[in-house]
Amino acid sequence: MSYARQMLDTYSRTANVDADLLAAVIDALSDCAQACDADTAADLSEQNVAEMVTCIRLCMDCADICIATARVTSRQKDYDASVTQPLLDACAAICRSCGDECERHARMHEHCRVCAEACRRCERACRDLLDAMK
Amino acid sequence: MSYARQMLDTYSRTANVDADLLAAVIDALSDCAQACDADTAADLSEQNVAEMVTCIRLCMDCADICIATARVTSRQKDYDASVTQPLLDACAAICRSCGDECERHARMHEHCRVCAEACRRCERACRDLLDAMK
Amino acid sequence: MSYARQMLDTYSRTANVDADLLAAVIDALSDCAQACDADTAADLSEQNVAEMVTCIRLCMDCADICIATARVTSRQKDYDASVTQPLLDACAAICRSCGDECERHARMHEHCRVCAEACRRCERACRDLLDAMK
Amino acid sequence: MSYARQMLDTYSRTANVDADLLAAVIDALSDCAQACDADTAADLSEQNVAEMVTCIRLCMDCADICIATARVTSRQKDYDASVTQPLLDACAAICRSCGDECERHARMHEHCRVCAEACRRCERACRDLLDAMK
Repeated sequence: MSYARQMLDTYSRTANVDADLLAAVIDALSDCAQACDADTAADLSEQNVAEMVTCIRLCMDCADICIATARVTSRQKDYDASVTQPLLDACAAICRSCGDECERHARMHEHCRVCAEACRRCERACRDLLDAMK
Repeated sequence: MSYARQMLDTYSRTANVDADLLAAVIDALSDCAQACDADTAADLSEQNVAEMVTCIRLCMDCADICIATARVTSRQKDYDASVTQPLLDACAAICRSCGDECERHARMHEHCRVCAEACRRCERACRDLLDAMK
Repeated sequence: MSYARQMLDTYSRTANVDADLLAAVIDALSDCAQACDADTAADLSEQNVAEMVTCIRLCMDCADICIATARVTSRQKDYDASVTQPLLDACAAICRSCGDECERHARMHEHCRVCAEACRRCERACRDLLDAMK
Repeated sequence: MSYARQMLDTYSRTANVDADLLAAVIDALSDCAQACDADTAADLSEQNVAEMVTCIRLCMDCADICIATARVTSRQKDYDASVTQPLLDACAAICRSCGDECERHARMHEHCRVCAEACRRCERACRDLLDAMK
């Protein structure tokens, strides 16, 4: 059981979002940030680095947005839709762009394949939370 | 002249957003993050800390979102509206909530007055950039 | 298998640090940051918030330092000891302080007990990596 | 007057570090992080991107460490030397490495010249604070 899940069990929240869903989002955000940071570094080690520039740019943005979203989501007591909704929208959008770009390199670079998978899972998790908040 | 402005002058971007406007946004985001982090700490030092809980929560979220937005904005070459727009929306929304809450404590706590000002400036800057991107 | 471990398997590093050890550190840093962010929020919901002020302060610092250390560690190709060593020292030190403080509240607040555990694991992981780098 | 300086004037700290010095450090950290993020993006736009890989790597680490150090420093009430000292050491070390690397590209790339200057200023500020804390 992840720390996100354990922590959610320790205190009562007023938000009526399911704890399993919330923990899945926080874990997916954290995994995706980690995969993107590692992928940035792996891309920079490739011989064809000039072809990886877009992938590097997107991974950097994706990691930053996932980290901020994870922190805000981990701390939420009540969900303020005016903040959480556009933040999750931005996060899902960068995960989609980054996942698409990583997938383009997935056959050549295994690190991009793994990162694409983390981005897809994170995009889905953000959209699930957006749906649950409606 | 801020480093944001100096850096923007050193390389050509394809984005057709005015450099003065962009530098003003990056500086306002960075200032707001700093003011919110300092205000969190100052709130925690107050005797009436129980009354400052909402202010602390909002300042933490505001700092995290401003930092991520500043980093993404500082690195943008082309603006991907599907990411940048909801991110700036989220940032303007948390700056508004945080600015409103800080203002409630502004008469009693000078640190909240200064932080409210930084939030207001940052909210305006985010909205100006959103308008310019349309 | 965590994403940190999967990513480490996808590209060759020159660093002669064991991949299992490295993945364990990155995962522990990420878990600890997450636990600290959640604990900050949980502390702020407690009735005795005035008694939790030190815990909140330490959790905020611990989360920020763990995140930076995780990002730098995730991206390392060669370890630059002049940076990585003091960074891991700082991280182990804040994990110790934060773990000690959380432990003081562990009996009363389950969220502090879980957070203390994450801090202890992270402190140990940082020290293990420091030992391996010698 | 920067927000860091304004905020430091609004509440009393027990730390006996001069407020001017502290504000200068916080501002230098924030400027350096911003310059490094912008330089990363500018490096990625250069035709000779393969030659900029080390510069990009160092700028990413430098930005992350400066941001964490700025946040921890902005919130400090009492300085816990066991944390603050190694953190400032790590920050000064990465600013030195990053400044050295940026300087190597300063004649060819104006963005690296500006970033090198921000790194030098930040390194000096961190060392000044380390000296003052002794």
